[in-house]
Amino acid sequence: MLRIVVACIALLAVAGSGSAMDRPVAPNGIALYSGYMNWKVVAPSYREDKGHIRIVTGNEIAVAALRAGTKPLPDGSVLAKVAWKAEKHPSFPVATVPGAFAQVEFMVKDAVKYKETGGWGYARFLGNELKPYGKDAGFVKECFGCHTPVADNDYLFTRIVTVP
Amino acid sequence: MLRIVVACIALLAVAGSGSAMDRPVAPNGIALYSGYMNWKVVAPSYREDKGHIRIVTGNEIAVAALRAGTKPLPDGSVLAKVAWKAEKHPSFPVATVPGAFAQVEFMVKDAVKYKETGGWGYARFLGNELKPYGKDAGFVKECFGCHTPVADNDYLFTRIVTVP
Repeated sequence: MLRIVVACIALLAVAGSGSAMDRPVAPNGIALYSGYMNWKVVAPSYREDKGHIRIVTGNEIAVAALRAGTKPLPDGSVLAKVAWKAEKHPSFPVATVPGAFAQVEFMVKDAVKYKETGGWGYARFLGNELKPYGKDAGFVKECFGCHTPVADNDYLFTRIVTVP
Repeated sequence: MLRIVVACIALLAVAGSGSAMDRPVAPNGIALYSGYMNWKVVAPSYREDKGHIRIVTGNEIAVAALRAGTKPLPDGSVLAKVAWKAEKHPSFPVATVPGAFAQVEFMVKDAVKYKETGGWGYARFLGNELKPYGKDAGFVKECFGCHTPVADNDYLFTRIVTVP
């Protein structure tokens, strides 16, 4: 009887982690975060050069720190930058709005684990297939290089929006 | 003793509703909703003509209906459209990002109360003073007129973003 119970617990544990196991994983080991569309808004942005319209969302740890003005962000902070193809609204062409999903990128704070890249781990997943970006773990040099000019803002381009 | 208790309860009730009483109110009676920056994302947008970058957020009722594809949205749905002045990012000028707060607008669903305007009540609050827009309750004709071309989408221009 005990063996059956143990076996059932083991089976349930595997079943419960199924969705996590199915998530795509970047070459540096960062798996796609689920639920990032339920995180709070950090800011919208529009990239003319790429034709992307974006939002950055943050998990509770990240948004609490950003709202409080805490820098650097604490370990456990995760930011998601979600990009869609920018399109003219069919009924209102002066408005640029999201079309097809383009990509989602994550910045994951762990000051020790990601010490070599400013305390941030990076990951990017492309298109509807959520294909992990990068041939090997060295891809983060590209991410980190681009973010280095904003080292004095904890390597973040995005500043959290404020409202009165 | 009973009178003192009653007086205390009355005082506490007034004190507790202080923040609600201080909220600006549109000429049609819709008060500014607090907490709309904690609501979930519906979509970002960029208005070239106005030089605004925006996000639309929705309360739980609205976002659940939009995600499920339920139209018209049920009573109790509230959408917030928040606009900031669009600026070039100082360290990355191909990115257009939010600057100063411009305005926040609300659409509030009550099929009976707002029957004359497609079931939606409208409100707009301008600038850091959150000054209510409109000289009298007739201002909603302007809102409704602009939204009429999208009557077949429950008067909503914004479609909720999707991710894989």
